[in-house]
Amino acid sequence: MTATGTGAATVSRVGTRVADLDTPAVLVELDRLEANLADTADRAKRVGVRLRPHAKTHKTAWIATEQLRHGAVGLTVAKLGEAEAFVEAGVTDILIAYPIVGEEKLARLRALAQRVRIITTLDDPVVADGLSRMARSLTTPLDVLVEVDSGLQRVGLAPGQESAALALAVSGLPGLRLRGLLTHAGHAYRARSPEEREQIAMGEAAALVQTAELLADHGIDASELSLGSTPTLASIEAVKAAYPAITEIRPGTYAFNDANLIALGVATEANCALSVLVTVVSRPAADRMVVDAGSKTLAADAGRAGGFGRVVNHPDHLIETLSEEHAVIRLPPDADWRIGDRLEVIPNHACPVPNLADTLLGVRHGQVEREIRVDARGRNR
Amino acid sequence: MTATGTGAATVSRVGTRVADLDTPAVLVELDRLEANLADTADRAKRVGVRLRPHAKTHKTAWIATEQLRHGAVGLTVAKLGEAEAFVEAGVTDILIAYPIVGEEKLARLRALAQRVRIITTLDDPVVADGLSRMARSLTTPLDVLVEVDSGLQRVGLAPGQESAALALAVSGLPGLRLRGLLTHAGHAYRARSPEEREQIAMGEAAALVQTAELLADHGIDASELSLGSTPTLASIEAVKAAYPAITEIRPGTYAFNDANLIALGVATEANCALSVLVTVVSRPAADRMVVDAGSKTLAADAGRAGGFGRVVNHPDHLIETLSEEHAVIRLPPDADWRIGDRLEVIPNHACPVPNLADTLLGVRHGQVEREIRVDARGRNR
Repeated sequence: MTATGTGAATVSRVGTRVADLDTPAVLVELDRLEANLADTADRAKRVGVRLRPHAKTHKTAWIATEQLRHGAVGLTVAKLGEAEAFVEAGVTDILIAYPIVGEEKLARLRALAQRVRIITTLDDPVVADGLSRMARSLTTPLDVLVEVDSGLQRVGLAPGQESAALALAVSGLPGLRLRGLLTHAGHAYRARSPEEREQIAMGEAAALVQTAELLADHGIDASELSLGSTPTLASIEAVKAAYPAITEIRPGTYAFNDANLIALGVATEANCALSVLVTVVSRPAADRMVVDAGSKTLAADAGRAGGFGRVVNHPDHLIETLSEEHAVIRLPPDADWRIGDRLEVIPNHACPVPNLADTLLGVRHGQVEREIRVDARGRNR
Repeated sequence: MTATGTGAATVSRVGTRVADLDTPAVLVELDRLEANLADTADRAKRVGVRLRPHAKTHKTAWIATEQLRHGAVGLTVAKLGEAEAFVEAGVTDILIAYPIVGEEKLARLRALAQRVRIITTLDDPVVADGLSRMARSLTTPLDVLVEVDSGLQRVGLAPGQESAALALAVSGLPGLRLRGLLTHAGHAYRARSPEEREQIAMGEAAALVQTAELLADHGIDASELSLGSTPTLASIEAVKAAYPAITEIRPGTYAFNDANLIALGVATEANCALSVLVTVVSRPAADRMVVDAGSKTLAADAGRAGGFGRVVNHPDHLIETLSEEHAVIRLPPDADWRIGDRLEVIPNHACPVPNLADTLLGVRHGQVEREIRVDARGRNR
């Protein structure tokens, strides 16, 4: 490592005051993170559902461990590479909520399933056949969930007959053990009102319960019913009261919260644990300034409330455009920012942000307490 | 490294057929890359401008070296961290087109300037003062360019009096050597017609020349006039004919090209060198399929032509939504894709894609010829 080299990035920043950090820096307010983890774990326990957080939000072994310590039963991930990273870190129960396709991936899945408990998902007989072929020689069957589309229109067949027919077929395949059904109501992020959000949450549960009942008529026990996103979590009490058969929730973003969840009415600035510390680097006009983080730090996800993130304590500042390393902020008339001033931005969408960083800085009382390595960064295969 | 570990990512893929690659994989067609580098280098030479490519597009030492071998005079980068990565790789002439603010960054800039030729940019006396204070004790003055806003409304003062006044002040500061002016007409990406694009290119050059003439009236020699983006490169012959004082161009995306440049009319699929190889993982409806790359591979940049990327050879396939690890593709009636089929996607915006990958796969004749490490990935400070 030379004097001008990557050394700057590898010197520990533990103990550094936030006021002295070089920018851009991705901060995690530890008090808020812990409150978010504890609140959701307590809530799941009270309501009577298992909590299996989606770890694609943080991609870090340390936060995963904290989630498990607070009572999560295991993790959810999207990609095999994420699962591998968390298994290396000692996690022993992982749901890969993604259709595994192709011989190379099946071999990797097999290696994981020989070490820890793995559950995976599918929505097609072709995927089921691949899994069955691979799993036949495992010493214990591979747990699978059939993915049902509760309205997102991404992966999954329609609830009811379509999904039930697939589940029925899967239940007869050697090597596999059909555990139940899974869905993700990601369309709740597009809800236009709290009522619509709650309606989507109810529909998410209904899709699973309705399909499971059809399966029960055929004598098939598909008793794990796994649903959830952070927006539908807001209605979990009502959902569980109406659909007591629901067994598991998989929120991800709740660990951090973000500007889109504020716009949806399910979070406030005060419980957003993730922010990006930035510096004003240009002030070329009275109504405009430029800060030193763009889409390569904040991600380019469009915001529900307009703009590309939320300036902490300044909801009237509009992040109007993002380039890769610049954010242009449109200012109200009285704004008095100067070059070198620092501010915090809450990203529109928290989940892509850790994937752009090597390390998150865990801060408490204005000081870095912990560097959090993003173990599964870039693990997209 | 365990059997299930990161090993998969570190095993060399050189020699593997593209047809056998696990996905998602970021591919660079080496024949196309080399043609793009050669064509632009030849063009710059013919027109009589120096070529200083923006390396934020690829962030790789290998492609930078190829650009220099084809006749580029040096590199452009946006961040100090990028400059450090390229200096480590042996590059000796780097323009950091970004205002450097803060003591930690000034110290890093100083270390770089002691090793190689560094040029930097500014649009404010506060930034100039910081640079001057740092540079006073260097053995050779630090080269600086004043950034002029030619219409992007990001960094830079207005052309003419405003920018000239700043340049005049900078020219008197110890430690600094004012070399000239710089601008970036990034708003050319928003042009609605080839005519508007050419008009923006002309305006970009005019902004610099007009300001330089004012400075000449004050006896200030600001003779380096650096402009450019990939869309305005399309008009470089006309620009240089009208404004012969222009000395340098800094296109970045030309190395790869992308779907936005196709929509702008300055590239075709046949000269897009970067693509993402993906696999169909779900086919839940006749008019919809899901492939295994989302915003964490393709980036979420909105497309000029709609959608989130362009399916190679299938311009009628619409990438309608991106999640983090899924792309939902809306299909025409006759589309016959099956689970396990593979396709290539040209990203809307090439530049954020290498920053999401650790390695690009250089392919030729359907086979991996070279793994290209993304040396400056994540170097955003």
